[in-house]
Amino acid sequence: MKKFTSVNDIDDPEKLVWEAIQTKHNPLEKSFLGKGKTMGLIFLNPSLRTRLSTQKAAINLGMHVMVMNLDKEGWALELEDGSVMNGSSVEHIKDAAKIMGLYCDIIGIRCFPKLISQEEDNAEKILNAFVKYCSCPIISLESATLHPLQSLADMITIFENKTTHKPKVVLTWAPHVKSLPQAVSNSFAEWAVAMKYNLVITHPKGYELNEKYTNGATIEYDQQKALQGADFVYVKNWSSYNEYGKILHDGNGWNLTNEKLSLTKNAKVMHCLPVRRNLELSDEILDGEKSLIYQQAENRVYAAQVVLEKMLKIETSVKTKSNSFTKSIMV
Amino acid sequence: MKKFTSVNDIDDPEKLVWEAIQTKHNPLEKSFLGKGKTMGLIFLNPSLRTRLSTQKAAINLGMHVMVMNLDKEGWALELEDGSVMNGSSVEHIKDAAKIMGLYCDIIGIRCFPKLISQEEDNAEKILNAFVKYCSCPIISLESATLHPLQSLADMITIFENKTTHKPKVVLTWAPHVKSLPQAVSNSFAEWAVAMKYNLVITHPKGYELNEKYTNGATIEYDQQKALQGADFVYVKNWSSYNEYGKILHDGNGWNLTNEKLSLTKNAKVMHCLPVRRNLELSDEILDGEKSLIYQQAENRVYAAQVVLEKMLKIETSVKTKSNSFTKSIMV
Amino acid sequence: MKKFTSVNDIDDPEKLVWEAIQTKHNPLEKSFLGKGKTMGLIFLNPSLRTRLSTQKAAINLGMHVMVMNLDKEGWALELEDGSVMNGSSVEHIKDAAKIMGLYCDIIGIRCFPKLISQEEDNAEKILNAFVKYCSCPIISLESATLHPLQSLADMITIFENKTTHKPKVVLTWAPHVKSLPQAVSNSFAEWAVAMKYNLVITHPKGYELNEKYTNGATIEYDQQKALQGADFVYVKNWSSYNEYGKILHDGNGWNLTNEKLSLTKNAKVMHCLPVRRNLELSDEILDGEKSLIYQQAENRVYAAQVVLEKMLKIETSVKTKSNSFTKSIMV
Repeated sequence: MKKFTSVNDIDDPEKLVWEAIQTKHNPLEKSFLGKGKTMGLIFLNPSLRTRLSTQKAAINLGMHVMVMNLDKEGWALELEDGSVMNGSSVEHIKDAAKIMGLYCDIIGIRCFPKLISQEEDNAEKILNAFVKYCSCPIISLESATLHPLQSLADMITIFENKTTHKPKVVLTWAPHVKSLPQAVSNSFAEWAVAMKYNLVITHPKGYELNEKYTNGATIEYDQQKALQGADFVYVKNWSSYNEYGKILHDGNGWNLTNEKLSLTKNAKVMHCLPVRRNLELSDEILDGEKSLIYQQAENRVYAAQVVLEKMLKIETSVKTKSNSFTKSIMV
Repeated sequence: MKKFTSVNDIDDPEKLVWEAIQTKHNPLEKSFLGKGKTMGLIFLNPSLRTRLSTQKAAINLGMHVMVMNLDKEGWALELEDGSVMNGSSVEHIKDAAKIMGLYCDIIGIRCFPKLISQEEDNAEKILNAFVKYCSCPIISLESATLHPLQSLADMITIFENKTTHKPKVVLTWAPHVKSLPQAVSNSFAEWAVAMKYNLVITHPKGYELNEKYTNGATIEYDQQKALQGADFVYVKNWSSYNEYGKILHDGNGWNLTNEKLSLTKNAKVMHCLPVRRNLELSDEILDGEKSLIYQQAENRVYAAQVVLEKMLKIETSVKTKSNSFTKSIMV
Repeated sequence: MKKFTSVNDIDDPEKLVWEAIQTKHNPLEKSFLGKGKTMGLIFLNPSLRTRLSTQKAAINLGMHVMVMNLDKEGWALELEDGSVMNGSSVEHIKDAAKIMGLYCDIIGIRCFPKLISQEEDNAEKILNAFVKYCSCPIISLESATLHPLQSLADMITIFENKTTHKPKVVLTWAPHVKSLPQAVSNSFAEWAVAMKYNLVITHPKGYELNEKYTNGATIEYDQQKALQGADFVYVKNWSSYNEYGKILHDGNGWNLTNEKLSLTKNAKVMHCLPVRRNLELSDEILDGEKSLIYQQAENRVYAAQVVLEKMLKIETSVKTKSNSFTKSIMV
């Protein structure tokens, strides 16, 4: 696997989930795999779970980890190709990416959207520069549009808790006071569809996600109707995609309550965290029996680890081939 | 040992000091103990000695270390239980703590007081959230009220230098231009008393520390009288506890001079560092023969290491038990 | 090697370059050398290449690495000896340096000039405090006046690409919009001279570097004349040394073009990075066949690694002696 930026980089998502669960049973079993290899974790935005869980995953595989807060510890980046750099940016993203790829065997990069221009965020200039210019495999640690490690952890968690082959999974919009990215929701949608779950997305009108990611899901504007018979309810706020980055609704009536949960099939409740307690979700639900939030967070380690394993294996196999090739030349 | 937040978490402080000295003789002897284990070092405030010495201690024990400046690299934290998080805080301390506990085998946390409300600082909300919500052992890297790793290093240093069984130890207030926490002084007091040393604390009126920590020590307002016959003089500034966080005295007359030191029994001089030279203590004394400041700093490694050793041993023993239990179920 | 702050710390620069190339062939061959040793990387300024490549080099040698952004994570530093620290600085550089030396086996330190006072920057107070007060070897990660790891990487790159024994190397000043240090240029000059290359430096009048570093090089104000017959062209901006830190020239006419390159002997083009594209150098040249910029960046790892190897070897040999000595006392 040369990159992990979306579910489309994966041949068989269900198999990957299964392998992650095997890894969880014995996280140190493959600690030989990353020996002598170095992972670079590059952050342009805050991170807690991603920072620590991906680091832990790399450590479990025997890798060394170099963490860099590129926004604070490095140089101001230029994103435009061909620009005359006589302003405030000091280094072009293509040089920074290329060089970090020289020093690392795998790179993870976090680059949030600015939520100002739909076109610019969709272009994923930073992530794509890493994919294009790094000679090593790239993992998205949440980009402008997607957060595949979170979604894989979510899929592992659903897999561990589901009692039916194809559960009904409801992604419900929640109130918030700030304009948030669509990345977690986009990504959850495309993974749940790829897992062939029955995905229903519910939100106020105007909060439709980019159809590119929700293709295969049912959109249902009536939250109560959506919740009926649900096995899992994933709670998440996002800002409008069509009126890009805008907050269109004050959230009234969209809180998930125990009363609403009674419409479900005893559904488990999920959230990617960080969660604004008693705004997005109540303490009662978050700390209650149905909450899977900490299991999701724990599974972030095994999501990252199974992806790293695949990258390390391919790299090793390529290197072995290359060695054989070298030997055959030398003979 | 499930937590190390105060001398009260230790059964036998003198034994711990003795074990730390054994560790110092061969710091790499137990590098197998932390194999496959991860230490999380979480900072909400600046740190030099604590950051590097604790990291070094963990490395000496074979652990992996993940350092996180939670104030800069993570999310703004909410400390109030039950609050509706519709303001600027993004993640509740209980979620942050719980999850970091999932990723780490031992966590160290630094959380200074704000010195605004005595009640709030005494509540130790951040430290206590980690103790309560983390499933792993917690080490204080200096909390609002105490700095036990510093005090343990101080006790090791006194032990290494004392020439009498129960030395006279004087903690003397020093001038400063900023309002400083009482944590180092509180902590030094409770450790020195626990070691059964003859502890005298001297300071201007109004600078009385919280009696909870100085119980067992003698308070002597006359600095010269206090210094008479001292074996060790620990120099430290702190702000008023009763008029909380206030600076009440300009410091005139409270500088430790060589003349004053002549009242002692050739006392060694200590300071936890960072020290404001020629304000808290003169270059002459800091760089002189009687100064133990660098030995104290060096002993920070062995203080941290002996505490980590105890935590790793207990954890290993618990895990072994848990495995036996699992096996007996499986049979 | 107790310090690596300038080419003058090296007996035989050419031999060092040769050894670095050996290391590049098998970077993990000496991973036993740093076992149980800790490298401290201390930054007072931004860093990308230096941060990651030096870390990688230490990892390749089996060392543990502790990275500290001293400006952001530590305490405000006092640089003046004997000052009364009643202002904003919290810790004296001599205490900080001394103590970091206690926790680390080798320390790297980055401390840029302020470009305000020639005298102050030439004094190298921070670097020299580390050299003076640390008991462990010190590596400059770019100081106020020199950047020896960059220059060593540059020399490795020239060595790998040269087709003649003593190539003509031209250091040419380039346009820029900000006032930049002279460190890279100073350092390149003294290394190129030490390698006995034919070094020509070309720049507008007023941009003469400190002669201390350019002694042995030819200064040629006519850029085109300078470029004639060049084997390597090193492009770099720096601010005026004589009118200290000033920008004296708008850069017009000083851009390196393909037309100008046609005057050379098919010269390779070098830059230390970060480079302001289309200001210092055009995309066309940077991304063209003659560009060595990424090879230079990659060689930063092996430059750092060969220096660390020398330091680790000497330290080991000293320690072995010291042990024998101890044993002979004990017998």
